[in-house]
Amino acid sequence: MTRHRSRPLLIDTDTGVDDALALAFAFRSPGCSVEAITTVAGNVEVEKCTRNVWTMLSLLAPLKLPVVAQGARRPLRLPLTTAPEVHGRDGLGNTQTGLHRTRVPNAVDVIVETCRRFGKRLTIVAIGPLTNIAQAVRKDPRTLRSVGRIVSMGGAFRVPGNTGPVAEFNYFVDPHAAEEVLNSGLPLTIVPLDVTEQCALLGDELRDIVQKHQTNLGRFLARMTADYMRYHQRTEGFFGGYLHDPLAVAVALDPSLVTTMRTTVHIECLSPLTRGMAVAAFPMSGRRTSNGVDVAVGVDRARFLQTFFERVL
Amino acid sequence: MTRHRSRPLLIDTDTGVDDALALAFAFRSPGCSVEAITTVAGNVEVEKCTRNVWTMLSLLAPLKLPVVAQGARRPLRLPLTTAPEVHGRDGLGNTQTGLHRTRVPNAVDVIVETCRRFGKRLTIVAIGPLTNIAQAVRKDPRTLRSVGRIVSMGGAFRVPGNTGPVAEFNYFVDPHAAEEVLNSGLPLTIVPLDVTEQCALLGDELRDIVQKHQTNLGRFLARMTADYMRYHQRTEGFFGGYLHDPLAVAVALDPSLVTTMRTTVHIECLSPLTRGMAVAAFPMSGRRTSNGVDVAVGVDRARFLQTFFERVL
Repeated sequence: MTRHRSRPLLIDTDTGVDDALALAFAFRSPGCSVEAITTVAGNVEVEKCTRNVWTMLSLLAPLKLPVVAQGARRPLRLPLTTAPEVHGRDGLGNTQTGLHRTRVPNAVDVIVETCRRFGKRLTIVAIGPLTNIAQAVRKDPRTLRSVGRIVSMGGAFRVPGNTGPVAEFNYFVDPHAAEEVLNSGLPLTIVPLDVTEQCALLGDELRDIVQKHQTNLGRFLARMTADYMRYHQRTEGFFGGYLHDPLAVAVALDPSLVTTMRTTVHIECLSPLTRGMAVAAFPMSGRRTSNGVDVAVGVDRARFLQTFFERVL
Repeated sequence: MTRHRSRPLLIDTDTGVDDALALAFAFRSPGCSVEAITTVAGNVEVEKCTRNVWTMLSLLAPLKLPVVAQGARRPLRLPLTTAPEVHGRDGLGNTQTGLHRTRVPNAVDVIVETCRRFGKRLTIVAIGPLTNIAQAVRKDPRTLRSVGRIVSMGGAFRVPGNTGPVAEFNYFVDPHAAEEVLNSGLPLTIVPLDVTEQCALLGDELRDIVQKHQTNLGRFLARMTADYMRYHQRTEGFFGGYLHDPLAVAVALDPSLVTTMRTTVHIECLSPLTRGMAVAAFPMSGRRTSNGVDVAVGVDRARFLQTFFERVL
C-alpha cells in the first residue's frame, strides 16, 4: 500500500464553538496531519482555550496526538475582548466546567519550531486573533516566511462586520497583531466573513444527522452548538451557526474551494470607530505599497458543506 | 389660476460636473424655488465653484435669481483635497477659463439668514463637503435645527468608496464637518453612493437627446460631461457618469424616490486609513447613542432618471 505523504498543519486557535468544529474537521480529514495546536486568547481566555483543545482531543481520540501549546493571554497592545455571548462562558457552549492546571509548552516556541521542522510543507491555520503568529514573526521572521502558507480567518470586506458595524472579531480583538502579520511578507490567505457567512450549519440538519448516527462526537457537537445556534437565531434570524473556522481549515487543505483576489490589506489600528476593520485596495488600487495577500472572495459553498458533513458528522 | 406655494431650496455646492447637473435639475423642476446657492471648496477651489454657479445661472437664465454666496476655502481642520481628474481643473469639464473677481456675500451668513427666513419650509441640499453647514450650525444651532430638512449627498455604506477603498469624496474632504453636522440634531437625510451609483447618465443616451433637441443648455452639458464620462469609462468601465448630486436634489423635492433607514452614523476623523468613512449602526445596533439620521438605502432609479431627462434635457 502506498501512502501519500500527508500535509502537516499547525492550528492556532482561540477555541470557541466553531474552532472546535474546525478541529474536528481537521482530525477527520484525510491527507493531513495536525502536528501542533496552539492557543490564543480571543473567544475566551487562553486557559479555557487550552482546556477546550484537550476536551476536543479526548473526543476525537486521534491516533497521533499533536503538540498542544498555550500562547498569548492578551492582544499585543489592547485589553482582551472575549465573546461569551456567542461561544458560552467556557467557549464550548457551556458544556465545560473547571480548569486543569497543567504545564504546557509555549505557543510561540512551538510555532517557530514547527515552522523550522516542516518548512515549505507546513500550513498554519490561524483561526483566532493573530497575537501568537505576530509574536512568532517577531521572534524569527525568516523561519515564519519559509512556511508554505498561512490561512487566516478574519476580516469583513463587502459585508458588515460581526463585531460592530465594520470589524470582524479576530482582527477587532488584536488589530495590531493582524497588521503586523499582514505586513510581514508571509504567504497569507485571508478567509473573511464574506465567504464564511455563506457557510452555515443549520440546526435542523444537525439534529437529523445526530439522531441518525448516534455517535458520541455528534451528540457532543449538538450540545455544544445549541447556544451558538440560538445566538445566530437572535442576531441573524436563522437557527444555525456560521462555520467560519472550519472553512479556514478546509481552504488550507483544498485551496480550490475558494476564489481569491490578490490585493493590499491594512487593518485599522488607530480609531475606536473603525477598530479592526480590514481595508482592501480592491477595486481601486490605492497609493499604498502592496502587501500582496490573497483574499477569498468566493466559495464553493455546496462542496464545502458536503465535505464538512461527511467528515465530521 | 391658483399657484401652489413652491418649496424653497438652499443649495450648498462645490460646483463640479454633477453639481452643475443638479443646479440644472433644480431650476427646471416645478414646485420649488432656489432661494440661495452657497459654494464650498471641494471638487475645485471655492472661487471656481462660485464662477461655475454664475456660468450655470447664465445658461439656465431663471426668472428669479437666487442669492449667490461664497463659503469655506478649506475644510475645518484638514488641507483641501480637490478632484480635477473627475471634474476638470475648472470643475466643469474644462469648459471655463478665467475667474471674475466679484464681491459675493458670505455663505455662512446667507445660510443662517435663509434658514431664519423660511424656517420649517426650507430644504437645504448639501452636495459638497459639509464645511459651510457645520460653520452655520456653530454660528446658530437653533436656527439651523429649525429647517424642514437637510439632504446631504455623501457616504458609502454597503458599496466601496470613490475616494480610496472605503470613503466617499464629500465626507473624505471634510470628515470633521460631516461628523459635526451629523451630531448636531439636524433633520438629516443622507444620499450615499449606495443609491447614487445606481443612477448613471449614459453618454450615448445624452448624445441622442442633445442631437434631437439642439438646445444651448444641452450642447453645453454634453461638452461639460465629456471628460467626466471618460473618467468613468476608465475607472468604472462604462461611458457615462453618476448623477450623485442631481439625485440629492430629486430626493429633496420628492422624498418618496428613495427608501430610507433611520440609524446612527459616524464619520471616521482619526485614522488616515479609513478617513471620511461613514459608519452606520445597521444592521447591528452598537453601543453608541443614536444621532438619528435617515440613510437612503434604495432608489426608484427608473423614475428618477425619467424625471431627470424630462426636465434637464
